[in-house]
Amino acid sequence: MAARTVKLAVIPGDGIGPEVVAEGLKVLEVAAAQQDLAVETTEYELGAKLWHRTGETLPESVRTELAGHEALYLGAVGDPSVPSGVLERGLLLRLRFDFDHYVNLRPVRLYPGVASPLAGVGPEDIDMLVVREGTEGPYAGAGGVLRKGTPHEVATQDSVNTRFGVERVVRYAFEKAASRPRRKLTLVHKDNVLTFAGELWQRVVREVGSEYPQVAVDYCHVDAASMFFVNQPARFDVVVTDNLFGDIITDIGAAITGGIGLAASGNINPDNTFPSMFEPVHGSAPDIAGQGKADPTATVLSAATMLDHLGVPEAARRIENAVAADLKTRAQGGGSRSTAQVGDDLAARVAEQG
Amino acid sequence: MAARTVKLAVIPGDGIGPEVVAEGLKVLEVAAAQQDLAVETTEYELGAKLWHRTGETLPESVRTELAGHEALYLGAVGDPSVPSGVLERGLLLRLRFDFDHYVNLRPVRLYPGVASPLAGVGPEDIDMLVVREGTEGPYAGAGGVLRKGTPHEVATQDSVNTRFGVERVVRYAFEKAASRPRRKLTLVHKDNVLTFAGELWQRVVREVGSEYPQVAVDYCHVDAASMFFVNQPARFDVVVTDNLFGDIITDIGAAITGGIGLAASGNINPDNTFPSMFEPVHGSAPDIAGQGKADPTATVLSAATMLDHLGVPEAARRIENAVAADLKTRAQGGGSRSTAQVGDDLAARVAEQG
Ligand SMILES: CC(C)[C@H](C(=O)O)[C@@H](O)C(=O)O
Ligand SMILES: CC(C)[C@H](C(=O)O)[C@@H](O)C(=O)O
Repeated sequence: MAARTVKLAVIPGDGIGPEVVAEGLKVLEVAAAQQDLAVETTEYELGAKLWHRTGETLPESVRTELAGHEALYLGAVGDPSVPSGVLERGLLLRLRFDFDHYVNLRPVRLYPGVASPLAGVGPEDIDMLVVREGTEGPYAGAGGVLRKGTPHEVATQDSVNTRFGVERVVRYAFEKAASRPRRKLTLVHKDNVLTFAGELWQRVVREVGSEYPQVAVDYCHVDAASMFFVNQPARFDVVVTDNLFGDIITDIGAAITGGIGLAASGNINPDNTFPSMFEPVHGSAPDIAGQGKADPTATVLSAATMLDHLGVPEAARRIENAVAADLKTRAQGGGSRSTAQVGDDLAARVAEQG
Repeated sequence: MAARTVKLAVIPGDGIGPEVVAEGLKVLEVAAAQQDLAVETTEYELGAKLWHRTGETLPESVRTELAGHEALYLGAVGDPSVPSGVLERGLLLRLRFDFDHYVNLRPVRLYPGVASPLAGVGPEDIDMLVVREGTEGPYAGAGGVLRKGTPHEVATQDSVNTRFGVERVVRYAFEKAASRPRRKLTLVHKDNVLTFAGELWQRVVREVGSEYPQVAVDYCHVDAASMFFVNQPARFDVVVTDNLFGDIITDIGAAITGGIGLAASGNINPDNTFPSMFEPVHGSAPDIAGQGKADPTATVLSAATMLDHLGVPEAARRIENAVAADLKTRAQGGGSRSTAQVGDDLAARVAEQG
């Protein structure tokens, strides 16, 4: 019997979600077992189907059950048959907010062998960690509409930023930066236009930064940062930014490191008051769902992020090694494989390290 | 004597602003004269120096004088000695808002001979026109701070979107799309999260779009669009988007087309109730100011956008031709030239076409 059992809630979700999660679990279980860790999964059918059947996105009873797990593993949610925003806000963001996932952790790393769309850029040029705030900012859902449907309609959308919320994520980012070789932290914001929120972020970075004299602090407006991700990615080590800017720049990060099929993320509650949630950055890709075409790598890498969070870094490194090896063979050609074949290969490569 | 005289207010601004504007004027005057158009310039010293001397960013008397011109030509504003936002909001955005520049027009075009940082991408892959809203959204300046400096501080930042404001810029974008060979318009927003503003934008695009059945309409979340700018730029023809998203994606657009040194923009008031303003997308780059190192091309191309707006497209095309020819010779090597030399060469290339 394993020394420790992790209770994992699995939300396969919509589109390619179930396919990629199946492979993620396959690889996760092999890596965990090697460290004497058992994974006990409970599957929750949330997403488009449930919403169509019941009109609910996250029933209260499910929310309570989810809260009783150590971690959540999510594929993707969203379907063209559901109005835009319903599942995103009713399920995905609801979990991020309710479970206080104030760190949305997104590594941006170019693996050897992966072709970046950027000319002449190699793995040594792109190795950053984006720490995106996950529980406030423009994602608060605040705003409203006046005189809807008339020529005088006004729609507002409010970004809410708190000292409490900004400080905790900034502190997390400084910790990460202090633990990496380059020890550099870049704040990305738009403080010359979003002056109220920007000034708060700047001040908090300055204040918290005084406790981390070993970390070099930089600042970039979000427009410039978006440009630098493309033409000077080596500029960045750890990046800390707000919820919306983080959403945008991590997709640029995914693009420059070979696409959304490889981008992992963790929605982390560092205080462990609720379970953290791990998911690929990509969406449900309904156009290729059910065809075994989806690349499960981002979901597999999200399991590595989960293992780090669960305090089993050896298992996380083995998954990353397996992915790195697999991506190298892809570069050498090799036929195209199905989602399940990639999962099998990755699991085998983890097993080899045991 | 010229058949027509344009009264142009010139705001050289800070950093490299004066250098690049001098070259822009040089080229503009040659191109204009060929069409029997004289340019009468009045220079206004606005920016960091004025602010340090008087504390003012845009004196009322200057504002009134500027309003009496046919167009404004601006270099760049901003200096590290001035707190972030003071000149941007007090001068640049003030002009955009006061003079109702509701169209912020930003061509994203890869010129032959220019190396894109994107591998394997050529001029045929990048030819878009971003129509950025310029007078509302998160740039409204709305928001505030509660309990500043305490652990309970809250800073808000509000995006204000009106039917009036969205409709006029969307209509402009449809007109542009209808006049281009591909006839495609992509709305970029984040309607699954910013639901109030996003729904308004979507609805307006749908409604106005029904008057333009010949235009194919697409939608992209801003995160996905930012990724596609990098790995599928050919996807886009005309893009319409809000003020902040437009700020971000046009910097990505600048990056993929060879950098901010080439990106032009027009802040346009299509109703001509106030003068429109033309400026490069880049900033004041204080680190290289006064060294003759700045590339004036973006400023020169902004003059072409100005000539289009003034109804002299022949002159605009000649400037673009001159730039295209110049960029091709750069690709063939050739020593590095000073700001003034590039301006001289461009002026000569325009003169050749006369
Ligand atoms: C689906 C959407 C709500 C989500 C976000 O905007 O955060 C996604 O884009 C992401 O990056 O995880
Ligand atoms: C200087 C700044 C206020 C401005 C903006 O955000 O619009 C600039 O980035 C631009 O794109 O013209």
